[in-house]
Amino acid sequence: MSHTTDLSINLATIRAQCDLRAACEACARHGIAWVAPWRDQLAATGLAEAARILAGNGLKATGLCRGGMFTTAPDALDDNRRAIDEAAAIGATHLVLVVGGLPAGSRDLAAARRRVADGLAALLPYARAAGMPLAIEPLHPMYAPDRACVNTLAQALDLCDALGDGVGVVLDTYHLWWDPELWPQIARAGRDGRILAHHISDFLVPTRDLLNDRGMMGDGVIDFPAFRRAVAAAGFGGPQEVEIFSTEWAQKPGEAVIATCIERFNSVC
Amino acid sequence: MSHTTDLSINLATIRAQCDLRAACEACARHGIAWVAPWRDQLAATGLAEAARILAGNGLKATGLCRGGMFTTAPDALDDNRRAIDEAAAIGATHLVLVVGGLPAGSRDLAAARRRVADGLAALLPYARAAGMPLAIEPLHPMYAPDRACVNTLAQALDLCDALGDGVGVVLDTYHLWWDPELWPQIARAGRDGRILAHHISDFLVPTRDLLNDRGMMGDGVIDFPAFRRAVAAAGFGGPQEVEIFSTEWAQKPGEAVIATCIERFNSVC
Repeated sequence: MSHTTDLSINLATIRAQCDLRAACEACARHGIAWVAPWRDQLAATGLAEAARILAGNGLKATGLCRGGMFTTAPDALDDNRRAIDEAAAIGATHLVLVVGGLPAGSRDLAAARRRVADGLAALLPYARAAGMPLAIEPLHPMYAPDRACVNTLAQALDLCDALGDGVGVVLDTYHLWWDPELWPQIARAGRDGRILAHHISDFLVPTRDLLNDRGMMGDGVIDFPAFRRAVAAAGFGGPQEVEIFSTEWAQKPGEAVIATCIERFNSVC
Repeated sequence: MSHTTDLSINLATIRAQCDLRAACEACARHGIAWVAPWRDQLAATGLAEAARILAGNGLKATGLCRGGMFTTAPDALDDNRRAIDEAAAIGATHLVLVVGGLPAGSRDLAAARRRVADGLAALLPYARAAGMPLAIEPLHPMYAPDRACVNTLAQALDLCDALGDGVGVVLDTYHLWWDPELWPQIARAGRDGRILAHHISDFLVPTRDLLNDRGMMGDGVIDFPAFRRAVAAAGFGGPQEVEIFSTEWAQKPGEAVIATCIERFNSVC
């Protein structure tokens, strides 16, 4: 039995092949119920039209990708407020935050982390007023310099503790699978009601590119059933969201990629 | 003033350019007091001759690289015992252990980690009898699948706690710099008398290859003075050891690489 209703396709996965409309139509043809679009895709289509495309294809949005970049964007607060508005306009369940790495020329990771905490605190009242949960995504430590200086689930949950309501975490297999503290921290995230999303992609051996060589589930070393069991035991019942940045998969037809996502979701995850 | 007496050259840094003898003679010409050879370099020269080459050039050995691979080597215990003997034969201060990743085809990271703990426990009596400290090197999480499933300093120190005397850790800037728990864990390592080595190399942005694109100190994002201060405050007074795996630096003359290591050590670290 195919459980496509528990699956979300992050549209970065087929970004090279499909614009927003083509991606949504392809997902609908395959019985997918959820997608996660990117802000540039909404901008290219127009926000109102994007919302119509989603609804017209029977699709709900898991996360909107993405806000954040508190350490590097010159107008981070304003831009993140716009991202919250856009997430609300398409009815997304949360806004994904990739928090940013080191500012250009800086080696002060502690300062970058303080700036992230300050940026989140400044943004949070607007998110709460909009009813839009902020989802901090801890990224793999190899992205600490240039993408996100939040690199473990424990660190993200400590930020949530300090911030209070209206903020949670993305649990992404690719970023978190290696962490010796993973299982207790997933349980903690569940107890605290912080789990907003469950992203899936595989870690390949060898990994030939730090950014664009993520694997289809089953092609790498991640134990997806163990991860799923931990997330379920922590009380999260939302869809699993496939997010694969991959030069290799970008060269295959979008429909074939979606079909493979579904097949692997059902056989591997 | 040049502090070459506080510097060790890990001979992987000039492996492509120099065999053991050439590397040691080059280091001696530059006033270096310490080197860290690799087992294959000792084997190529012969163990007794390798010891003579070191002594004849006034060089002491920091770590011998490397034992470990408890999860994948078919004869890990025997091979690690030979490594201990070799480390003792050259008078190394410790044997570096890269503990191994997932066995081929396995996705069971927890089982691999148990196997590492069991392998260390089995090896330790031999190491104690030889008076050779075992230095667990936690590697960056991007190496968890294929090189080492010990990926944080806290995890390595937990292993040390369970094992008792005769085992410690390598603090390598490249592997550890991103860790939100780094400073308290370095302090813990010092309190427990576990610091056996301090390796240095830089994390480049972008990193173009997971294995062979480490940076010369100063070319990347790591705050070396902060790391050094933490290590010194934790009570470690041994040399800093430059270990750079780099396709780029492998193409430069070995003497020029050593000269650059010294210059950067004095200006950056």
